[in-house]
Parts: sequence; structure tokens; C-alpha cells
Amino acid sequence: MSRAFEMLIAEQYEHQNYPRVWPMPQISASSPEQYPLNPEAFYFEYGRQSEAQPGCSVLDAAFKRYFSLIFPDYFPGGNVCAGQASLKAETVWGFFVNKTDIEDFPRFQFRGILLDTSRHYLPVQAILKTLDAMAYSKFNVFHWHIVDDPSFPYQSQTFPDLSAKGAFHPMTHIYTQTDVQRVISYARLRGIRVLPEFDSPGHTQSWGKGQSDLLTPCYKGGTPSGAFGPVNPTLPSTYQFIARLFKEVSSVFPDSYIHLGGDEVNFFCWKSNPDVRAFMQKMGFGTDFTKLEAFYMESIVNITSTLNKTAIVWQDVFDYHERIPEDTVLHIWKGVPYDYTKELSRITKAGKRVVLAAPWYINHIAYGQDWRKSYTVQPLNFSGTEEQKKLVIGGEVCMWGEYVDATNLTPRLWPRASAAAERLWSDEKQTSSVEKAFPRLQDFRCKLLRRGIQAEPLYVGHCRHEYQGI
Amino acid sequence: MSRAFEMLIAEQYEHQNYPRVWPMPQISASSPEQYPLNPEAFYFEYGRQSEAQPGCSVLDAAFKRYFSLIFPDYFPGGNVCAGQASLKAETVWGFFVNKTDIEDFPRFQFRGILLDTSRHYLPVQAILKTLDAMAYSKFNVFHWHIVDDPSFPYQSQTFPDLSAKGAFHPMTHIYTQTDVQRVISYARLRGIRVLPEFDSPGHTQSWGKGQSDLLTPCYKGGTPSGAFGPVNPTLPSTYQFIARLFKEVSSVFPDSYIHLGGDEVNFFCWKSNPDVRAFMQKMGFGTDFTKLEAFYMESIVNITSTLNKTAIVWQDVFDYHERIPEDTVLHIWKGVPYDYTKELSRITKAGKRVVLAAPWYINHIAYGQDWRKSYTVQPLNFSGTEEQKKLVIGGEVCMWGEYVDATNLTPRLWPRASAAAERLWSDEKQTSSVEKAFPRLQDFRCKLLRRGIQAEPLYVGHCRHEYQGI
Repeated sequence: MSRAFEMLIAEQYEHQNYPRVWPMPQISASSPEQYPLNPEAFYFEYGRQSEAQPGCSVLDAAFKRYFSLIFPDYFPGGNVCAGQASLKAETVWGFFVNKTDIEDFPRFQFRGILLDTSRHYLPVQAILKTLDAMAYSKFNVFHWHIVDDPSFPYQSQTFPDLSAKGAFHPMTHIYTQTDVQRVISYARLRGIRVLPEFDSPGHTQSWGKGQSDLLTPCYKGGTPSGAFGPVNPTLPSTYQFIARLFKEVSSVFPDSYIHLGGDEVNFFCWKSNPDVRAFMQKMGFGTDFTKLEAFYMESIVNITSTLNKTAIVWQDVFDYHERIPEDTVLHIWKGVPYDYTKELSRITKAGKRVVLAAPWYINHIAYGQDWRKSYTVQPLNFSGTEEQKKLVIGGEVCMWGEYVDATNLTPRLWPRASAAAERLWSDEKQTSSVEKAFPRLQDFRCKLLRRGIQAEPLYVGHCRHEYQGI
Repeated sequence: MSRAFEMLIAEQYEHQNYPRVWPMPQISASSPEQYPLNPEAFYFEYGRQSEAQPGCSVLDAAFKRYFSLIFPDYFPGGNVCAGQASLKAETVWGFFVNKTDIEDFPRFQFRGILLDTSRHYLPVQAILKTLDAMAYSKFNVFHWHIVDDPSFPYQSQTFPDLSAKGAFHPMTHIYTQTDVQRVISYARLRGIRVLPEFDSPGHTQSWGKGQSDLLTPCYKGGTPSGAFGPVNPTLPSTYQFIARLFKEVSSVFPDSYIHLGGDEVNFFCWKSNPDVRAFMQKMGFGTDFTKLEAFYMESIVNITSTLNKTAIVWQDVFDYHERIPEDTVLHIWKGVPYDYTKELSRITKAGKRVVLAAPWYINHIAYGQDWRKSYTVQPLNFSGTEEQKKLVIGGEVCMWGEYVDATNLTPRLWPRASAAAERLWSDEKQTSSVEKAFPRLQDFRCKLLRRGIQAEPLYVGHCRHEYQGI
């Protein structure tokens, strides 16, 4: 993300000692001097020293969007016939802003949100709305946990049976290639990368419906039980399938990262299968199934390397000491909610880059103002050297889908996720007080409403423009 | 509510041993015999023995609504020009239902939902949508907690300053008389009574903004501190005001009940005020401020009696042993969440009728399937005689507004409130299993979605028609 794009719109400054914006900018100095803000005269300008210059499609589109957000009630010429009325912009539409100099940049480069489209299908429109809201909170990574046990909504060109047989519905509950392109393009214009996750070898029950011989047959009393376990790591056909699928995924999703999952593998089914046990013997793994899992993950990480993608994996992969490429990023989810500092110490000590998700599993709801817990997370407050701290490349808010679909996604995400957004963007010292943050976050929530995001209230009160979308 | 209106629509019966409807009907017998369900031939009929007969506006309107719900895709003549095409209804539109005889009636006569429009303003549209969903779950009382400390949105004809000065906004965040009439009329057509609550003497901070001398001035160090406490029970003007306000409220809201609140009175401010202390002496109350509260509540209950209304009050009023009319209903909210059985025993033993709300404060959210707790409540499982049990006239789901407004109201209410709805409607023995209820409630939640209610998911899965309202 270019620094030129990380602009910040100072809106309706209300004589506070700090800017009423969220997330808090790094450096900001305002003066009592006021300027009229007049839509007839207002324009965005490219910085002379900026790498981006006129014609930059991302910035030009952003200028257009943000003009409408700054002047929501403004229509050139108004609603009247030409010649019958004239606009006096400064008096009717104008308002004033204090002169403010802002220098801004993010604290962490990776500021993500995970959506889970397998446990419930999310219509494309719900994803696009989330991307809008993400941009307003300066999130820059959409981690698309697109498939999992319950359903496989990604419509693969190479393996169309995966969604035809593995989606909740083969026509209505899928993401076509057009859908995926639309999401990627919409995200790109908002400075957001799309990080796809195809989690294996566990969490793959839905994959097995459209791809026979992929999952491990479980045995009971010496015969197959009819149930299936994780991906079968003993068959060459498995790796051929993964290579072809990932080749497609790598080309569909342009981001340089791909998320390979690797979490929560249950060894019960592998243990029951005589072919798997024979393979263990042959490979010299003894009875240590973590070695079998390591073997599988190393193989698929290597496949992604040959596709020139950097792998992100859940921390389980580190926990089993796989030999994985140096640049693989570990995704920390254990130690929920407060013991993740040990995980940070342990994994950065091994020289691995990490993304912190553990304290931000905000699908876990609780009564009251639980955004405060998200806000008081200190991602670098763990035992380690300065070098280790530099390996924390960012954090991620996870909205797992067991209890979430398009009916409740937006109010559960916003403004709760915005608390983590400020922690990942802003200077921690300037934003250490939850009490000071509260009125600013309330303002921001009203701003989200005005921008059409169905953000829930933080506490008793009101917004000038309430949600009207019922 | 007439029994004729408590009809039940058997929809798309899917060869189960029990009807796939929610709440479960009292008596239902189905046979394998199937009938075609054909919109060209389908009609509702008044029972010959029914008190209601053709021309009953409530039923006629219900027939119209439910026809569209049963045949959502049906338009007479279709979308084609007359003469150019003909409909073959039985093959194109028809489906089959099993022959089913149902006899149904509610277990409890009072099945309420409380909405709180003071802590957050709810647009009228959000209230109407809730009334729609209430009817689908057979709730029949809308308890409108219309005013409280934070705001006074009810626009009184007699005292317009109450909302002009006490609402969050005097124009946009109020309920006009037209709004109130619209809510009452919309509710009536759905078999729902509107029970207004004007809670006093506590919970009245917003009242004081538009009505001077109503609230008690608090004192600090011998002088008024500028803060105000509960309604001032020592002044005759207080009772004149209440009498005029309640006269208006009694005429605006036709229901025979009125809710007077009476909960959570903080004595701190009364104690600080020398005039209140002098009144206590004069009345012989000593230093027992519960007697002062009792004096106030008795006075206003008597005012409502003269207006031919029956009072409902929160149980605090009983707890202070006021002499209140025999027919006053006590609203049980203490003992949250599981100790309410003692409250039921204690208050019914005194011969008072009660409404149970304590276990159904579903504004308290928790991660996971918390509807199960609501469902397993046994309202009559308390120590008491058969006569005492008969005094439990029903129950109420409360959605207090600290963290709820139009952005998140609907998914928080539905289908969670529907769990309590079945407990209040259906036979407890037939509905004792949470596990058996689960798939039926999942079906019902999909039905709510299809009917345009933004009901959240219970767990992993999908509905054929997902929510598309983003």
C-alpha cells in the first residue's frame, strides 16, 4: 500500500484537542485557524513528491468515493431545473474545518479481518459491504477463509465438482470466478489485499464430496466405517490434486501470500487406517502422527513456493516443528484470550514472522462493552528482543462463522473490529486510554452509520442519522 | 384474543412424526393422505361455530397476509399479458400437504416482548417489523418501555415539553401521536396488545428536562447540588401532573393494562433533601424510605384505577409491601437468571398475579446457543399450590436497550425470543427436549428469513432463501 493512499480526511473538526478521527493519526497538529469547506471549490490533490501521480486508478476512484462521503448531501446543481435556481455553496452547503497538518502511517503492515464463508455462506454483497467498512477503519487484508468442513463455495475451474457437490447449494451458495474477481477488484480499489485460505489437511470434509480418494477413509473394527478423516497424505494423487488446485488459486488470487491452514488436525482417523499406518512405518515416522502432518504440510508449502507464493499457516504448523521455508508466516491463534504472549515469544524466538489473531476472535461475543478488551491488547508486550518484536508484522480480527451469517455479520463486526484497527494502526502511547477512546469511537460509529454501515451501538445514546435500513 | 384467530397454518409438511411448525401446537394428528395445495383453489374459511364471522376485520386482514406467506411466489395471472398465457396452477404452483387436524390454544394468556425505546430510539419501522415477527411466534403483548432516564420520545399532547426537551432529538427521535396510533393499529391486526410503560418514580431523569419541579432536587452540604433524583413524592403538583399524563396515556393506549414501573428507586437523593425528610416526619415514615416509595406507588396505582386501568408493576412494588389493589399484576425480574422460582413462590403465595420475565432477559447475550437456556425454563416449576400456579398469567422476553438499537435489534431478538415463545404457548411435556426442538427451530428460522425477518443463525448451515437485505 503506497503511503500516498494512506490519506486521512479531517471531517467536521469540533474544537477538540485531538482529531475526532479513528484510527488516531500518528502525528497531527491543528490550529484555531478555520477554512471554509466548500464542495464547489474542494478538490483532492496528488502530492508533488508522491510516487502516485494523476491517472492512478486507485487514487482517482478513492477521490470520487470520499468526495461523496465528505459532502453526503451535495448534488451539483441541486435538484432543480437548470436556470431556475442557483446554488450559493458557501452559505448553504459549506462548513468549516480547522487547519490541521497530519502525518500518518501504520504501526503494523498487516491489519486483517477474517471472514468465514464455509460455516455460513455470505452473499457477495455482504463481503463488499465489509470491504467498505474495513477501508473506513484502515484494515488492509481481507483473509478469506473461503472453504472448510461444512461447505466448499469456491467454484473451481479445474475441479468444478468441489462446489457442485461440496457447497450448501451448487447454484445459489457458491462464489463463481466472476464473484471472486469482483471481490478482489473491489478490495484493491480500497487498498485491501485478498488473502485466500484453503485450509488442509483438516477442515476438509466438504472437499471430499467432490473429490474422491482425497480424504482418508476411517476404519472401525478392521473395515472402512464410511466416515472420512483429514486429507490422505499417503497418496501421490493427493499432491497432484493440491498442486493443480493451488496453481489455479495462485492465478485467481494475485496476492503474493496464500494461507494454507494446517490447524487442528485430528489424528484419530489416520490412526485407524491400515494404509496410513503402513506408510508411517515405511517413512520411519514410528507412531508420531505429528511427523505425518509435518510431511504433508512441508509438501504443500513447497508446492506454493514453486508457484512463487509465500505461505501463511496457523501456528500448529510451527508447533510440530516442520521444516518450512524461512519466510513462512505463522498465524497465532492459541492462548485465547490472554496467554498469547508466550506464543509470540516462542515463535519469534525461532526467527519466524507472525500475525497475531488470538486476542481478536470477536466472533466470541459477551454482554457489554467487550471492545475494551480488544482495545487494550498490547501486541508487542511480550518477552523478547527488539529483533523479535520486528517479526510481528500485524494482527487480525477473526469472525468465525458458526453463529454468523449475513443477518448479523455487520453489527457484530462494527464497531467492535474498529477497536483492534486502532491498535494496529495508531501509536500505542497516544491511544493507551480506553476512556479517552470511548467518545471518539462513538463518533466513529455514528460516522459508519452515516456511511451506510449497520454498526451497532457501544452504549446508551443516539446518532444524528440513525440506521434506517429496516 | 379470540380462539378463532389462533389459527395455525400447516406449511410444507415433510413427513415428520410431528408438525414442522413453531410453536408446537397443543394437539395435532396427521395422516399420510395428501392434498394438493393450489393457490387458485385455496381459501380460508370462518368456522361455523366461531364467534368471528365474515366481515371481522382482524381475520380478513390476516387471511390476506397469510395467503401471501403461504404462496410467496404467486401472482394471479402471473407476469404475462392477459390472453397471452394461461396458468396451470396445479402443476406449476401447487404443492402437497398432508391431511392434518390441529387443535390449538395457548398455555399462557400473556406472552410478551419488551422493547426499550429510551436507551436507544427505535424507528417506527423497527417496531412494526418486530410486531410482524412477534405474530409469527404467537407473542400477543408488546410491552413498550417507551421512556426512561436517557430519553423521553413519547410526544405528549398535554405536556409537549416532555419530548421537546427530553427526547434525544425533538423532531427526529420522537413518537408522534400518529406513530403511536400506527403501532397500536398494526399490533391489533396481528392479535397483539400494546402495553405502555411509564416507569416512575425512578428511571425518570429525562422527564425532568421538560417538567420543572417534578424531580427531587438532590442536596450536597446543605444546598442543592444541581442534580436531580426520582420523582418528588412530597408535592401535590406531582400527583396532579401524573393524573393528567396518565389520563392522556389511558386514552391513547386502549389496552386495559398500564405498566407503572416502580423498579430500582435509589433513596440517596431523597435522603439528602431536607423537604423530603420533613415530609417523612410529618407522615410518620421515620427513616424508612421504602414507606415513602410505597406512598407514591399507592397514589399512582389509585390514579390508574380511577381511569379504569389495571396496573402492572415491577416486583419491587410488592417487595415494599404497598397496599395495592388486589388485581395489580407483579412483573418478576429479580432472581436473574435462575433464582426466580423463589420470587414466584413468594408473590403468588400472597395471591398476586405475576408475569415472569427474569429468565428471559435476552439483551444479555453470550457466545453459542443461548436459546437453549430460554427454552428449558419451567415457569410453573416452583414451590406452591395449584391455586398459586394459576396466578402465573404468562411471561415476557425483555430486550433492554443499553446495547441495542435498530442496527442489531432484529438478529438479537430472532430466533432467540422464539424459544421462550414456544415455552409460553405449547404443552411443556410435548416440548421438553431441546435436541428435538433444535431442527424445528432451525426450520422456523429459515421461515422467518423467507418472511423478511433478519433472524440470525442458530448454528452452522444454510437456508434455501438466505437474507438478502444488505
